[in-house]
Amino acid sequence: MRATGKVFMASDGTGARPKAATPRGFRDYFGAQAARRTAMLAAVAKVYESYGFDALETSAIEALEALGEYLPDVDRPNAGVFAWEDETAGWLALRYDLTAPLARVYAQHRHNLPTPYRRYSFGPVWRNEKPDPGRYRQFYQCDADTVGTPSIAAEAELCAMLCDALQAVGLDRGDFRIRISNRKLLDGTLESAGITDPECSETGERRRAAVMRSVDKLDRLGPSGVRALLGDGRKDASGDFTDGAGLSPEQTERVMAFTTMGKEESPALMFSRLGDLVGSSAIGMDGIREMQELTGLVESAGLGQVCKFDPGIVRGLAYYTGPVIEAELTFDVSDEKGRVQRLGSIAGGGRYDRLVRRFTGQEVPATGISLGVDRLLAALDMRDRNGRQSDFSAPVVVTVMESRRMGEYLAMAAELRAACVRAEVYLGKPGSLRSQLKYADGRCSPAAVIAGSDEFEKGQVTIKDLALGARMARSASREEWQERPSQVTIPRAGMVAHIRQMVAAER
Amino acid sequence: MRATGKVFMASDGTGARPKAATPRGFRDYFGAQAARRTAMLAAVAKVYESYGFDALETSAIEALEALGEYLPDVDRPNAGVFAWEDETAGWLALRYDLTAPLARVYAQHRHNLPTPYRRYSFGPVWRNEKPDPGRYRQFYQCDADTVGTPSIAAEAELCAMLCDALQAVGLDRGDFRIRISNRKLLDGTLESAGITDPECSETGERRRAAVMRSVDKLDRLGPSGVRALLGDGRKDASGDFTDGAGLSPEQTERVMAFTTMGKEESPALMFSRLGDLVGSSAIGMDGIREMQELTGLVESAGLGQVCKFDPGIVRGLAYYTGPVIEAELTFDVSDEKGRVQRLGSIAGGGRYDRLVRRFTGQEVPATGISLGVDRLLAALDMRDRNGRQSDFSAPVVVTVMESRRMGEYLAMAAELRAACVRAEVYLGKPGSLRSQLKYADGRCSPAAVIAGSDEFEKGQVTIKDLALGARMARSASREEWQERPSQVTIPRAGMVAHIRQMVAAER
Repeated sequence: MRATGKVFMASDGTGARPKAATPRGFRDYFGAQAARRTAMLAAVAKVYESYGFDALETSAIEALEALGEYLPDVDRPNAGVFAWEDETAGWLALRYDLTAPLARVYAQHRHNLPTPYRRYSFGPVWRNEKPDPGRYRQFYQCDADTVGTPSIAAEAELCAMLCDALQAVGLDRGDFRIRISNRKLLDGTLESAGITDPECSETGERRRAAVMRSVDKLDRLGPSGVRALLGDGRKDASGDFTDGAGLSPEQTERVMAFTTMGKEESPALMFSRLGDLVGSSAIGMDGIREMQELTGLVESAGLGQVCKFDPGIVRGLAYYTGPVIEAELTFDVSDEKGRVQRLGSIAGGGRYDRLVRRFTGQEVPATGISLGVDRLLAALDMRDRNGRQSDFSAPVVVTVMESRRMGEYLAMAAELRAACVRAEVYLGKPGSLRSQLKYADGRCSPAAVIAGSDEFEKGQVTIKDLALGARMARSASREEWQERPSQVTIPRAGMVAHIRQMVAAER
Repeated sequence: MRATGKVFMASDGTGARPKAATPRGFRDYFGAQAARRTAMLAAVAKVYESYGFDALETSAIEALEALGEYLPDVDRPNAGVFAWEDETAGWLALRYDLTAPLARVYAQHRHNLPTPYRRYSFGPVWRNEKPDPGRYRQFYQCDADTVGTPSIAAEAELCAMLCDALQAVGLDRGDFRIRISNRKLLDGTLESAGITDPECSETGERRRAAVMRSVDKLDRLGPSGVRALLGDGRKDASGDFTDGAGLSPEQTERVMAFTTMGKEESPALMFSRLGDLVGSSAIGMDGIREMQELTGLVESAGLGQVCKFDPGIVRGLAYYTGPVIEAELTFDVSDEKGRVQRLGSIAGGGRYDRLVRRFTGQEVPATGISLGVDRLLAALDMRDRNGRQSDFSAPVVVTVMESRRMGEYLAMAAELRAACVRAEVYLGKPGSLRSQLKYADGRCSPAAVIAGSDEFEKGQVTIKDLALGARMARSASREEWQERPSQVTIPRAGMVAHIRQMVAAER
């Protein structure tokens, strides 16, 4: 809704000043933090492009009705959207994910898009949730989807592409693990146990939803808690009672057998046990066939070690309709205070065949993955804190000793840049060399260039090594560095070569 | 405002399907179009980083009161923002530019930011305007600003940086022209002519605004029309009368002398004539001193040919408070139908010293430039249509002749990617080779890989050259290409080398 003039201008009079604050639930990214995400997205995009995926950038704003209420994250049932009524366009809303806009685009342009349509989209999405520490109302998504093919090879491709992308952003193969499963296996198990039925009756669907909610709590409540929820219900520590799904003891055990299936078992043994669980259920047998095909393709791509079948990924099962993919980091990271952080899933996805139907009435097979960019960046940040240096160098500062020589200082910075050295001229308050060096320190500069009338007269330039102290602290042999003076005066013509050498030593 | 459940779910029943359409005033970017913008922004960011500018990414949503009503484009006086009332955070709005969020960030974090703070921000901004052909409600901005220094060297740096950025995205020095001027010159002229006064009285300010509006129409109405508007008023072709600014004939002539100052004159002559116009006005003399300094710095940076003083850039003068910068392309481009398109300004900026004051009460000097990314992309598109090829290659398609061999087809695509060739496996409807080649054609593929049982048995692979026809049409000597067969069967081990050669020939 267009704000009224009154509201809009409330703060512009001579009255109270507006508060300078990031609105609650939002955040700003500064310097290297922002640049590193851009670099990460560029590396991922390069991998996705190489797999034949095309970029797609939709508008942040969609017609509200085009978004629907189809929020993908089952653990955020109350998530809403930011929406308002527009004078000319009706109800508009900010996208809450990148999948709903993809469905809209595919329905709108399907006759001009290749089939299958492989596309990737990166960008912010918005959730109208109550702001909470660590839960943001705007965050990045980084999606790749294949729309229009039922082939399981699409999932095999996504697994390989996810591996390549994670390696492209700086992880080693051993740093992450991809787990794959299939919603149809659980569906088949439920059907075979008589909990649901192939006709999707209302009772069956209600029980399926109750089972999903229960098994989703496996991490938190453990097997006995889930058993109670699947059966007659459960009283928690505070005495509150949660109704159960009402399964018979035998049905409960079959569900439990599914969810606790041993991750260390051989695929052959798992498939045989799954065969028992799904019995003659058509959808269950379909799921087994799909998983056999997918594990075979993943194996033949040399990804058998990193990408494993695990029927226990239940979290995504409520949303997806076929194969499910989830990636997590295998190393621990600790925060600034040394506390180990659980990072959980850094990427996930799967097959969702019903999305485009809202628009066209036709079911279109689709499958995709989403990368948790911010979480991944946080993990790399924590891992690298005491390890490798950032790629984003601090600038060399050219100090200003005589303001009438500004043109020459600008030229020095330009020369450094032409030699691929990040450089800036000091443009702070005119002041002593001391205050300019303090500024350079604040910028973490590796070096400062100093040229006063003396230097100009003699065709020289003074270069101060600002990183020396840091290097001496880091280096094993202090002597090596102590021999180097922290400040040298050299011919002006040698400035670029000298600084390039310093910056190289610094890396 | 959070939508009510009723509105939000209106389209999710079994009733009418939602329309799959980009909301009016918005647009989607596909494939190379989106990827090219990303590449352009990366190239520009690299230049900005090299000048010591740091990335800043603020949230898309701001508190409405933090934005204020300070819209920068004087030609869009009725532009509004998308705003709504939030349950927890009060009135929120989508940012309408990147400058207002910068002011908020600087006011909020100024004690932890370097002074001056050089930052760049790229991203979409939103305007709540009536959708109009060619006028969008979401578009990209690409800004670089220096906050906290009154030094004119900051503007010299911006001019040099703009040159480097435009060259980094593929323009030659001769392809663009940067014009610089200074708001203080016009202010001094008005003051010296007795139109305004140093005390900024209300009458004076009203007359200044009227003068700005009038000279802004110079392009459209010509000198005689502007003269009328400056004096007693003007009757247009339809008979409508517009009130004049009420200047005396002598005052009018001084304003006209300013706006029509010869662009071909030598700087020395211009400065002398400007000296006459601003007389003893302090602000005017200040403007002359600043312009002498700026032209000197630009000259000494070797940019004298591309970056010229031109008092006639009046468009930005109403918004800015000091130096003004405007860049335009010097080549004509034509659209698909061969019609020459006027592209106008592709970048602009200047000094605006009053922005942060809204928050802190203190004036903070600031200066910046904004690059018209979409306009620049459109210009490069039109220029390159018959020229160089796009950087974004089409993928090689690996066809699927036997679906049980999917693992081997996936491996072929992976091998090609490892050799930096974009490649995808055909995952469309299983079908004839003919339909798969048709798909590859639709993807503009340079080559298709074909392997059936015959090839697998003999350890071979067939490669079809799909770009041959296009190359023959382009090439001067058809014979050269006709010698090459459009399809070869070679040992499997030679596949990558063969295709790499084909793709290289294609470029």
